[in-house]
Amino acid sequence: MNSIPPQQLLAQLNWRYATKQFDPQRKINPECWAALEDALVLSPSSFGLQPWKFLVVTDPAMREKLLPASWGQRQVVDASHLVVFTIKQHLSEQSIAAYVNRMAEVRGVTPESLAGYRDMMVGSLIKGRDEVARQLWAANQVYLALGNFLTSAALLGIDACPMEGIEPAQYDNILGLNSQSLRTVVVATAGYRARGDKSAGAKKVRFANADVLAEV
Amino acid sequence: MNSIPPQQLLAQLNWRYATKQFDPQRKINPECWAALEDALVLSPSSFGLQPWKFLVVTDPAMREKLLPASWGQRQVVDASHLVVFTIKQHLSEQSIAAYVNRMAEVRGVTPESLAGYRDMMVGSLIKGRDEVARQLWAANQVYLALGNFLTSAALLGIDACPMEGIEPAQYDNILGLNSQSLRTVVVATAGYRARGDKSAGAKKVRFANADVLAEV
Repeated sequence: MNSIPPQQLLAQLNWRYATKQFDPQRKINPECWAALEDALVLSPSSFGLQPWKFLVVTDPAMREKLLPASWGQRQVVDASHLVVFTIKQHLSEQSIAAYVNRMAEVRGVTPESLAGYRDMMVGSLIKGRDEVARQLWAANQVYLALGNFLTSAALLGIDACPMEGIEPAQYDNILGLNSQSLRTVVVATAGYRARGDKSAGAKKVRFANADVLAEV
Repeated sequence: MNSIPPQQLLAQLNWRYATKQFDPQRKINPECWAALEDALVLSPSSFGLQPWKFLVVTDPAMREKLLPASWGQRQVVDASHLVVFTIKQHLSEQSIAAYVNRMAEVRGVTPESLAGYRDMMVGSLIKGRDEVARQLWAANQVYLALGNFLTSAALLGIDACPMEGIEPAQYDNILGLNSQSLRTVVVATAGYRARGDKSAGAKKVRFANADVLAEV
């Protein structure tokens, strides 16, 4: 067991903030970044279905192209890493079959032995929802992955900024996502805060616990 | 700086799983639970607006009532803690004013000095979206908080299970949420795995990194 004490968790969650200015010179080292990618892949999702793809944009020219689609927010070009959180469009029985096959492969069982689980997923996601509802469901999963990513980064001492202030359709065009049946939902930048970032010193604002927590 | 090494993060994310059977005898100690509540409160959200309330259901009779609304899944009664993630309905200019006032209080500035920020939020959330779009936005934020909660629990060595398999409208009725303008989105249970939980030993299934991650 490699758990951490409660104070350490809270210290890191208090340390993190939505970084407005990144130090463009400081890059996340490859070992650390690889761990953050693995953490992303380990994100929980409903049914374990992982209806997503995470695009890590490293090409500086591409990041410049994305800047106007990000309301000019400099994090997109200055941060060490930019992750575009996308969902899979057109989830189908085939998508579920692909997951069931993967499950069978990893666990060393036959896909047939997982028929009950497959049917439950097909019933809930394919027969029970239309494409719009499926995309909303997938977007929820992506936000869960984003929450995991931000907390994971904070624990590693890496600064990050979740960004809804983008034009998803422009991202899709610039990154050529339509032909891959992917759709941009939200992005996150990660790296190290610039010394001059005023947001770093601003007190964290949360409602009082009594206003957002209740015991029943 | 209280950060942790990458291997420790990944060890805990690999240790966690969606717990199917909790040990009904084992309770999370109060210090640890208080930290998890604080972690929830520290969850990031768009604009920092925290459009949520987290209900911690401890009353055993209430948890029995929620069992049929949870497809009979025993985690709801057996786990040490049950958290209902709800969103605020009818977000309005008043909701944003409440947040701006809180921000002014925490940071020791006047609400007037935050007028620009307030107007941006009003423009985006109140004028720029209808009630349905606002609720979808709020639900996304709640999933982000859920992701933070699950990762935080894993870091503390606490088992958890995110649960979409509930009847949100029944939860709202049983918990009397309509009169509070709250709406159930998703729940999570937390505690300690039962010795006999078969899911604990099952290999974690994730697509290969190359299938869910791409470098651009």
